[in-house]
Amino acid sequence: MSLSHPTETASLAATVNAVDLPPRKHVLDLDDFSPGEIAAVLESTRGMAEILHRDIKKVPALRGRLVVTLFYESSTRTRISFEEAGKVLSADVINMSASGSSVDKGESLLNTGLTLQAMGVDIIVTRHPHSGAPHLLARHLERVGIINAGDGIHAHPTQALLDLYTVQEMLGRLKGLKVVIVGDVLHSRVARSNIWGFAKMGARVVLCGPPTLLPVDLLRRGEQNGEHHPALDSVEVDTDLDRAIRDADVVMALRLQAERQGGGFLPSLREYVRRWQVTEERLALAKPEALVMHPGPMNEGIEISSSIAHGGRSVIEKQVANGVAVRMALLHQLSAGRR
Amino acid sequence: MSLSHPTETASLAATVNAVDLPPRKHVLDLDDFSPGEIAAVLESTRGMAEILHRDIKKVPALRGRLVVTLFYESSTRTRISFEEAGKVLSADVINMSASGSSVDKGESLLNTGLTLQAMGVDIIVTRHPHSGAPHLLARHLERVGIINAGDGIHAHPTQALLDLYTVQEMLGRLKGLKVVIVGDVLHSRVARSNIWGFAKMGARVVLCGPPTLLPVDLLRRGEQNGEHHPALDSVEVDTDLDRAIRDADVVMALRLQAERQGGGFLPSLREYVRRWQVTEERLALAKPEALVMHPGPMNEGIEISSSIAHGGRSVIEKQVANGVAVRMALLHQLSAGRR
Amino acid sequence: MSLSHPTETASLAATVNAVDLPPRKHVLDLDDFSPGEIAAVLESTRGMAEILHRDIKKVPALRGRLVVTLFYESSTRTRISFEEAGKVLSADVINMSASGSSVDKGESLLNTGLTLQAMGVDIIVTRHPHSGAPHLLARHLERVGIINAGDGIHAHPTQALLDLYTVQEMLGRLKGLKVVIVGDVLHSRVARSNIWGFAKMGARVVLCGPPTLLPVDLLRRGEQNGEHHPALDSVEVDTDLDRAIRDADVVMALRLQAERQGGGFLPSLREYVRRWQVTEERLALAKPEALVMHPGPMNEGIEISSSIAHGGRSVIEKQVANGVAVRMALLHQLSAGRR
Repeated sequence: MSLSHPTETASLAATVNAVDLPPRKHVLDLDDFSPGEIAAVLESTRGMAEILHRDIKKVPALRGRLVVTLFYESSTRTRISFEEAGKVLSADVINMSASGSSVDKGESLLNTGLTLQAMGVDIIVTRHPHSGAPHLLARHLERVGIINAGDGIHAHPTQALLDLYTVQEMLGRLKGLKVVIVGDVLHSRVARSNIWGFAKMGARVVLCGPPTLLPVDLLRRGEQNGEHHPALDSVEVDTDLDRAIRDADVVMALRLQAERQGGGFLPSLREYVRRWQVTEERLALAKPEALVMHPGPMNEGIEISSSIAHGGRSVIEKQVANGVAVRMALLHQLSAGRR
Repeated sequence: MSLSHPTETASLAATVNAVDLPPRKHVLDLDDFSPGEIAAVLESTRGMAEILHRDIKKVPALRGRLVVTLFYESSTRTRISFEEAGKVLSADVINMSASGSSVDKGESLLNTGLTLQAMGVDIIVTRHPHSGAPHLLARHLERVGIINAGDGIHAHPTQALLDLYTVQEMLGRLKGLKVVIVGDVLHSRVARSNIWGFAKMGARVVLCGPPTLLPVDLLRRGEQNGEHHPALDSVEVDTDLDRAIRDADVVMALRLQAERQGGGFLPSLREYVRRWQVTEERLALAKPEALVMHPGPMNEGIEISSSIAHGGRSVIEKQVANGVAVRMALLHQLSAGRR
Repeated sequence: MSLSHPTETASLAATVNAVDLPPRKHVLDLDDFSPGEIAAVLESTRGMAEILHRDIKKVPALRGRLVVTLFYESSTRTRISFEEAGKVLSADVINMSASGSSVDKGESLLNTGLTLQAMGVDIIVTRHPHSGAPHLLARHLERVGIINAGDGIHAHPTQALLDLYTVQEMLGRLKGLKVVIVGDVLHSRVARSNIWGFAKMGARVVLCGPPTLLPVDLLRRGEQNGEHHPALDSVEVDTDLDRAIRDADVVMALRLQAERQGGGFLPSLREYVRRWQVTEERLALAKPEALVMHPGPMNEGIEISSSIAHGGRSVIEKQVANGVAVRMALLHQLSAGRR
């Protein structure tokens, strides 16, 4: 109740001065982040997390800035996480979802983006079923920062950054860690962005799942979309989870989309559970302090057992909490870049 | 335009100091409110109502607090009433409805609650078709205050508190009043919470409606769910509205759910209207200053005649107005309790 | 970051003092605006547009005011435009759309309005498929300002005001201009409000389209709804676009509703495109500096060619940008009128 604006401004300034984030216009994927820039975002996230632990979660950093969440797929966590991040930073946040909007009238994504730009929107946070949709907006909108909140099976960079932050917070480092990503890697934008992120930060990434759900292009070391990327040299694939999980520092289970089952990708759900569920027995093969992660929402009993999901090694709730902080850092970085 | 923060803070402090609300973590139903605590909430509501009558309806009491409305049933009044209450108190309010969210993906209520808790949400206001859903959240979420905005046919405590406030405001007291609740009591969460509230505050409650729509457990005086509660000793039932309404101080009509008609609960709509509609003739049997109430939305011409609904004894619009104030009081109480 | 409240208040005061807007309770259509009042709104809009170009788009003008957007038809631009306008002015804005609300329960528009009034809502911005719906609210709600955001085929006054502002901003005047409105005038609330607006401000309005899509009542000069209005004396109709467009200062294409095609209103889409699409060739017949306008969302390739839509004479994005400013001016005018 005794909160005064000078105090707030001061405490924000302290936060802001702590990190010298490089200017950035968009967040589309982690492929164009340097390791140094990722490290700077994680450092900025730490300051934002501190704000979230205050009694009064409010700083004026984005006052008078307009953030629109433009979601063409439904999502609780991600939309609310961004809405909270924007509001804690005092931005005006406007939600625009596929239902109840001109999206219904078939207006093109690009025209919707141009409309929002004309309205003076500063940042568009978008989720879209088509890979590359945020890139289309970024190419055509001169005056709006675009944040990719998940596009098709392509990328989900803010999820990857919060995963990196969570691991670094818990284990103190990223370099040299063994990170096993288990499940439907082929269709997972979370996995794709995490591969970039962990590989760039010097971790050893092992992808594990049924051969039909592993990306063919990654079966050849260091290649993606036919191009060779040195950053991906450290990525391995293995269909045997009992082998892959040995000495892992991080085990990340991916959500199995029920609809994959019909597509010939899985022999049967029972077989999937038997061979690739993250269980107590399997986790015993990892390092003693290994972390269990999941991007949510979970299918408990399918890709992860309930006891593991809510067990002592699970950092799944920490991931959610850190998601707000990392999005604050990114909104702040893009907003600062626009001044 | 000349509003300055010190003034606001001062005026809020005045409001807040006026009432010494006991600490409270959740608002699930009125069964765990003592008469003294109900009186304190009503007193706090009076201060909040005063804020709503100001030219500038804004105080910083919940600045930096995050309130999520998590509604699994559609509702205009209640959701907007809470959203307004939160915003007038300067909270950040995020709406999360069943459509357009992970609720669609079948994520469990509990996992959704855990996610919101991880995000640092301070208060969840929830409406759910299943009785007991808010209690489930309250049992498992350590760091979030839960407000029940209506669960199944079980409880709607904020509606009952605004009804109590409205009656006390209009008639100056609650003790000793005769309150007749008419209609589908069996399926009404509004009625159930009002029974607790009015009975605890010393009013005489008479439930009236078709025998198939009266709760069997309340036919035996003072019992609910097989247990005897002294507070409910003063509750009576009567299927004859012409008799029940005599000398009533308050007549509360309940909304008749159209879908009940097919379930064998009603002989016919015509019969229902003839015997249990609140009409001019029937109201003439009540006390001259008797109040007419309805939780809304009304079926005019079914459970209440239009002339009564919009007549001089109707306090239905006052109920709506007081709804915002009572929700401000509760949000403030829960927020203060978390510091 | 160094923003302090005194500065904001001062800058707002400057803005507010610049224009002496006449008091007004509702904005239902332009028929009850005098030319002088329209000019005053346009002048006030200029001040609001300046705020939107600041680094920090935020002034406290509507602090503690409650604005509800009550939309019974989906719309992106208009709802978001009002939401942004309200938030930039620091109002609390609550969205209430047809889905997910008591609207589903069949509550009447009037009862919904009375509920919002009881909650202390200051301004309701409403869109409704039925012509006259906002007028119904305005007649019955004593204490709420109503803004019509589009009612049936009747009126869309805020769109017309932003069109007037855009033309005046670009061409420096309205008086004496030739304005050609092309397309489905009969079913266009945008056209109807623009006819009032441009005619009142002294422009010459020519309506052009298939005879089945031109309003019969306007075929007789100066008449609408059987009454003669001198302000409409300058309105002409012409089914030949090549003739109508000659020496035009403004060419406004209207959205063709796909569903009209089945109703016997159009011979065929191909025929429509051939005769009434706004194309490069046709625009060459207008004045060299002629503006191309469209209320959006566009059907590119139907009522307007893509090259024109995104060409150098198009002010379509300016219309969108100005929409926020004109809505700020109107919200501010209604709010000031209520003090």
